[in-house]
Amino acid sequence: MLKKNKKKNCAILIIGNEILSGRTKDQNISFLASWLNSNLGIKVEEARVIPDIEKEIVKNILDLSKSFNYVITTGGIGPTHDDITAKSIAKAFKRKYKYNIEALNILKKYYGNQFNDPRKKMAKMPEGSKLIYNPSSAAPGFITKNIICLPGVPLILQSMVHNLEKYLKSGKKIFSLSINCQTVESTIARELGSIQKKYKNIVEIGSYPFFRLGKIGVSIVLRSSKKKGLQSCHKNIIKMIKKKEF
Amino acid sequence: MLKKNKKKNCAILIIGNEILSGRTKDQNISFLASWLNSNLGIKVEEARVIPDIEKEIVKNILDLSKSFNYVITTGGIGPTHDDITAKSIAKAFKRKYKYNIEALNILKKYYGNQFNDPRKKMAKMPEGSKLIYNPSSAAPGFITKNIICLPGVPLILQSMVHNLEKYLKSGKKIFSLSINCQTVESTIARELGSIQKKYKNIVEIGSYPFFRLGKIGVSIVLRSSKKKGLQSCHKNIIKMIKKKEF
Repeated sequence: MLKKNKKKNCAILIIGNEILSGRTKDQNISFLASWLNSNLGIKVEEARVIPDIEKEIVKNILDLSKSFNYVITTGGIGPTHDDITAKSIAKAFKRKYKYNIEALNILKKYYGNQFNDPRKKMAKMPEGSKLIYNPSSAAPGFITKNIICLPGVPLILQSMVHNLEKYLKSGKKIFSLSINCQTVESTIARELGSIQKKYKNIVEIGSYPFFRLGKIGVSIVLRSSKKKGLQSCHKNIIKMIKKKEF
Repeated sequence: MLKKNKKKNCAILIIGNEILSGRTKDQNISFLASWLNSNLGIKVEEARVIPDIEKEIVKNILDLSKSFNYVITTGGIGPTHDDITAKSIAKAFKRKYKYNIEALNILKKYYGNQFNDPRKKMAKMPEGSKLIYNPSSAAPGFITKNIICLPGVPLILQSMVHNLEKYLKSGKKIFSLSINCQTVESTIARELGSIQKKYKNIVEIGSYPFFRLGKIGVSIVLRSSKKKGLQSCHKNIIKMIKKKEF
């Protein structure tokens, strides 16, 4: 039951030393941004990558939770010593950090007689959190206030977003159109700037040079919640490009 | 002429709607983090992705420039209307936004009689900036105070870092060792936690589960500026794993 709201925004907080050291390439920002955007009309307006340090997690959680409708964190909810996301969020909101009985039961059932203390740790979270079920490896994510905590492993995270959907209020859907042309940005920059001025506050026009298979070109990407405005802007750009005869 | 300093840290600021919409996967954080770390001993301690909005750029530049030795921005220094990084940085530091004569000459030579206004824009930057030469597409990056501005296109950025090196003071080199074992995190979590306590403030131990080619396992990554401490910690973990007999 998704309620339609005008504008919903979101920040993504990637928690993990392995991303900041360059060892691991983040895959969660682009996946979450695309998914939120196309499925729910929720716009990601900022992303941050921070280390596994309690002080940093607390500071960023408090900062982002004030500025955005939703904050999605990834990483730091496993069984090892460097998994401190749940504890840090409890601290940020001055909530008790304790076992969630439902999570404990889920994990008990999944692990059977191999349910040891490190595994039990994955059921500890800020008091009053709601669970996000995990179909691939049992350990649930959770929601505390407007903070949504997901694991860092991309495949597990991706298997869970379906179970997250019901908790999010969708915003206005964003439509997008793109145009690729074989030219360089500076040839069309002035005209594109004029068109952007004309459609200010209606369409967001981005220009991205590309170099693929020995060819150079520009991708022009149009994004808007207004379908008509988007189509009219798209026509204007096509017309401008045709006049140019590259 | 690199001076050796004890601790140098850095933040990365990715400026670009295309990353936040999920359309483009960021490649610059992992490249820059690895390069800074392994070549210069400069540790990336935070990364942010923000939209092409002047107010946001100004706010983040001021915030990060106070907290870190260096801030590297990527994106927003091309010829189109959505390239507003240079202008926003001038605004943040209350400097004039004007043509850099050397940059103008470089671009004039490169473009010859095709040196139009959008291309000239790429020579505009905060007054008093130093240039970072661009061997692949001429338009230079620049340094204003402790802010280092590079383009967003990964291949161009990667071609420029060699010319950036001379401006950065290197920190202590970070060494790393890693151990892969075919088990799950919870089997070794308690012992790994004890070893981390023993090497607190000496070695940073990260634990990362992996799922590759149908096999599951854990990568344990050790990072430290102290070679001896690192090796001794490594030995301890190997010993612990051997005892476990997975």
